[in-house]
Amino acid sequence: MTKISFETNPKNYLHWSIEIRENLAFLTMNVNEDGGMFDGYQLKLNSYDLSVDIELFDAIQRLRFEHPEVSVVVLKSGNDKAFSAGANIKMLASASHAHKVNFCKFTNETRNYLESSSQDSLQYYICLIDGVCAGGGYELALACDHIVLMDDGSSNVALPEVPLLAVLPGTGGLTRVTDKRKVRRDLADVFCTMEEGVKAQKAIEWKLVDTITKKSSLEEDLNKLIVDFSKKGKLNKCKGIKLNKLEKFFVNDNYIKYSTIDLKINREKNNANIIITSSDEVIPNNEKDLESAGDKLWLLRCVRELDDALLHIRFNELEIGVIIFSSSGNIESVLKYDKLFHDFSTNWFIREIKNSWERTLKRIDLTSRSLVTLVEPGSCFAGFLSEIVFCSDRSYMAEGDFEGNNKPEASLSLTDSNFDYFKMSNGLSRLKTRFLEQDDKLTELNEVKDKIILSEEAKKLGLITFSFDDIDWDDEIRIFLEERASFSPDSMTGMESNLRFAGPETMETKIFGRLTAWQNWIFQRPNASGEEGALKKYGTGNKGKFNKQRV
Amino acid sequence: MTKISFETNPKNYLHWSIEIRENLAFLTMNVNEDGGMFDGYQLKLNSYDLSVDIELFDAIQRLRFEHPEVSVVVLKSGNDKAFSAGANIKMLASASHAHKVNFCKFTNETRNYLESSSQDSLQYYICLIDGVCAGGGYELALACDHIVLMDDGSSNVALPEVPLLAVLPGTGGLTRVTDKRKVRRDLADVFCTMEEGVKAQKAIEWKLVDTITKKSSLEEDLNKLIVDFSKKGKLNKCKGIKLNKLEKFFVNDNYIKYSTIDLKINREKNNANIIITSSDEVIPNNEKDLESAGDKLWLLRCVRELDDALLHIRFNELEIGVIIFSSSGNIESVLKYDKLFHDFSTNWFIREIKNSWERTLKRIDLTSRSLVTLVEPGSCFAGFLSEIVFCSDRSYMAEGDFEGNNKPEASLSLTDSNFDYFKMSNGLSRLKTRFLEQDDKLTELNEVKDKIILSEEAKKLGLITFSFDDIDWDDEIRIFLEERASFSPDSMTGMESNLRFAGPETMETKIFGRLTAWQNWIFQRPNASGEEGALKKYGTGNKGKFNKQRV
Repeated sequence: MTKISFETNPKNYLHWSIEIRENLAFLTMNVNEDGGMFDGYQLKLNSYDLSVDIELFDAIQRLRFEHPEVSVVVLKSGNDKAFSAGANIKMLASASHAHKVNFCKFTNETRNYLESSSQDSLQYYICLIDGVCAGGGYELALACDHIVLMDDGSSNVALPEVPLLAVLPGTGGLTRVTDKRKVRRDLADVFCTMEEGVKAQKAIEWKLVDTITKKSSLEEDLNKLIVDFSKKGKLNKCKGIKLNKLEKFFVNDNYIKYSTIDLKINREKNNANIIITSSDEVIPNNEKDLESAGDKLWLLRCVRELDDALLHIRFNELEIGVIIFSSSGNIESVLKYDKLFHDFSTNWFIREIKNSWERTLKRIDLTSRSLVTLVEPGSCFAGFLSEIVFCSDRSYMAEGDFEGNNKPEASLSLTDSNFDYFKMSNGLSRLKTRFLEQDDKLTELNEVKDKIILSEEAKKLGLITFSFDDIDWDDEIRIFLEERASFSPDSMTGMESNLRFAGPETMETKIFGRLTAWQNWIFQRPNASGEEGALKKYGTGNKGKFNKQRV
Repeated sequence: MTKISFETNPKNYLHWSIEIRENLAFLTMNVNEDGGMFDGYQLKLNSYDLSVDIELFDAIQRLRFEHPEVSVVVLKSGNDKAFSAGANIKMLASASHAHKVNFCKFTNETRNYLESSSQDSLQYYICLIDGVCAGGGYELALACDHIVLMDDGSSNVALPEVPLLAVLPGTGGLTRVTDKRKVRRDLADVFCTMEEGVKAQKAIEWKLVDTITKKSSLEEDLNKLIVDFSKKGKLNKCKGIKLNKLEKFFVNDNYIKYSTIDLKINREKNNANIIITSSDEVIPNNEKDLESAGDKLWLLRCVRELDDALLHIRFNELEIGVIIFSSSGNIESVLKYDKLFHDFSTNWFIREIKNSWERTLKRIDLTSRSLVTLVEPGSCFAGFLSEIVFCSDRSYMAEGDFEGNNKPEASLSLTDSNFDYFKMSNGLSRLKTRFLEQDDKLTELNEVKDKIILSEEAKKLGLITFSFDDIDWDDEIRIFLEERASFSPDSMTGMESNLRFAGPETMETKIFGRLTAWQNWIFQRPNASGEEGALKKYGTGNKGKFNKQRV
């Protein structure tokens, strides 16, 4: 099977275009009907598949890094009939369960990324709906900061998944309707069971959109919104940096080599090893040098490559049950890079790199594979890289000298980056989640900040799960990996999804936890995916046949 | 099929016994191996099925109502080998998907009920684990206020569902381990993937239990705990009231008549109608009369009968997709009963009745059927009964006079009972959830408190979904019911589970939302429930065969 690639750039876009006018950008969706990722369906009416969302993800990222001067993005359609008909139904009906679930998760992550643009990067999204806006199309609108709906007697918003397809709006729609837009639950019930959706007047009454406008007043209304949001997003006079193609080499079927990361697949053992290597390059020490380093800066290369490696595993390596994180290099160098986050915290470029790490660390949290970090001799888990240890379901740390290995003793280091800096989806730092409501523990950890922590102490502090010396190390890791590979992948997914997110819930965790879990359940049910189910029957003129038992 | 009944009493218990010694109770689990609800399995090692949990539910309720003087309950095992081996695996393997899901939900509700005893009724549960304590057995312990584990070289605690059965601990285990007991997530990961569980020393280190004790020091340690908890639970000198058998008549296959409730099934239309009738009895106006009314008090009869009716529909009427709530009677009478909650708020008996209503209203919220309330002429939705309107996915209210109907015009009334009194699982009142973060709206509603609200005003206030007059009423209701019956039951369940719980999440909502949804998903997967799945293969000497794809 062809591998799915997540790299693209505006020159290669099939479905989107970006137009920049000073501090305003127009992001236009005009899906190429024949440009879908797989055969067997056409992307009519701006319906989408993964290929469309990969471009959207790229566009959001480029708007942030390449165009920090942009403060307002108008997201609109280039299709004259529809804003967007949502995820393509024929694609969904023919896709495997795993692809459906992975697709929804990536789409969710992309919408969260879009949604965070206003807070993280002061880039506000105004969504302009002219024409049909259904299902995933409306869910895309829901992720924006402001929704404008044309009051033209035909444009509408709808979540018709339930009545039409017997599945849920799978990318945050239900949660954003009640929790973000505060639509009353009974009106939400009516809305989500209507095939035909609602038009301007009712849409604004029910709080489904923010502004309705006639064709004659569109320009004026839109301009006013743009001016208002531009004031909120302070005009950045800074110049962006270019995101070039990743350095990525497929050495062989089981080995991808990036500039800062090695991804090695062990098919026999069903695991993948992601090895992060530190840099010995000169580290910029002022804003000018930082920005001129641009996408060559190790800190940025590393996070982009890590993100790409994770997506590669998720979509192209379905049988890999365990991801092993390890690192190699100079811990002092990592600490110097880590210091950039705090020394240049007001610099737009450093802020964007921080956001990329935060987002990518969340991508790790949300990856449905068992995650383990090995802190070995010669590794460099410090500051932001230590977060990977805390992303993991468990961690093993080497103790003392290892025979025949002249690398430095395994050590860990905490910095300000580990305390209320990078947030998980639940709104807490990883250490706060790890030691939920244990302030004394966090005080204790704060006291070892910026120090080098060896294995025994790390274990005592609760930073790692196990500490083993040279004699036991190989056996213990082998036994763990074999055991993990023997478990049912489904129960692992369910267990990890529950154990990883202690503490409060947010709109994000509700979407990934509650909503996604229900959607996955429904995707399995014969009423949706069976031969007589609604997904299969859609477009045939026949309705799905349902088993009436309520569960 | 025989109907499952949820009524029992200690004289008929097969699996539990209650022993009262002044303000101390011993609740002992000694499961009758051959006393299971269905054929084909034996309840060995204090493993359980629904019949065991029905008795537990009854016992908790009786301890509250019949023995308010009890401040400490010691929950222990009467089996000499095990505390409890958890839910019976053969039962799970042979049960239908619907029964598994319903069983888990009821068990979860029962554990939440037990868990709330300390806060609601000042009855503290100390769990004494002597012997094996695995899976649902440990989850029962987790619901208690304090866990004592014997340090005898063999007693243990375990959540072996994942490694042994490829399913999740389905009754709150994962959530309570991380969120209630604050077990570190990586230790929780290790714990939940161990078949053998952990014994005393490690169990206390990992915070899985609160006390470990040797046989020689058990009595002393337990007595000290009892004394300490007795001090927290202030010694109630009050005398309990007896809970007699419900007045419940099976008029025919489609009609159950209780003393305050009629339950009518319309099989053709896949719906059930629950009609609540007000009382014209004299309402007690002092504590003495209240307590001597006992379980004859309409307020208590009504909630017990409502609870029973809901459970009946859930377990015995799987094809009923919609529950229609309606009421009939004197709104003034309901308001007078409602006033008892506030006039006698410190009285133990009124407090228990309030807790019963709160719990039963939550049971409605968590019932996976579409819920609709019809506020018709002559109905009596006021105060606590109005909460049922706000439990519903949508509501219809009659406007003006209805031809040939001389009943009073349909009206609604809000009282203090609707403002921060009855909480949903998310910790908010239903009105606060309905108008999430809209304080001005709640202020507006507060101004119409204790007034009679007619249909048009109710609609304007957002208290109901639709208002229809005599001409449209029948058609609109008919169309709605037909439409609802035509949808896929699965997508309804998923949609409603998401729309009903806007706002914050609590341990309860995490268990019912996130955890339950994942468990339901896993229950469907071939890796668990297929012919080669772990549930089917358990006890055969063969392991389950798994599809390794991660989803």
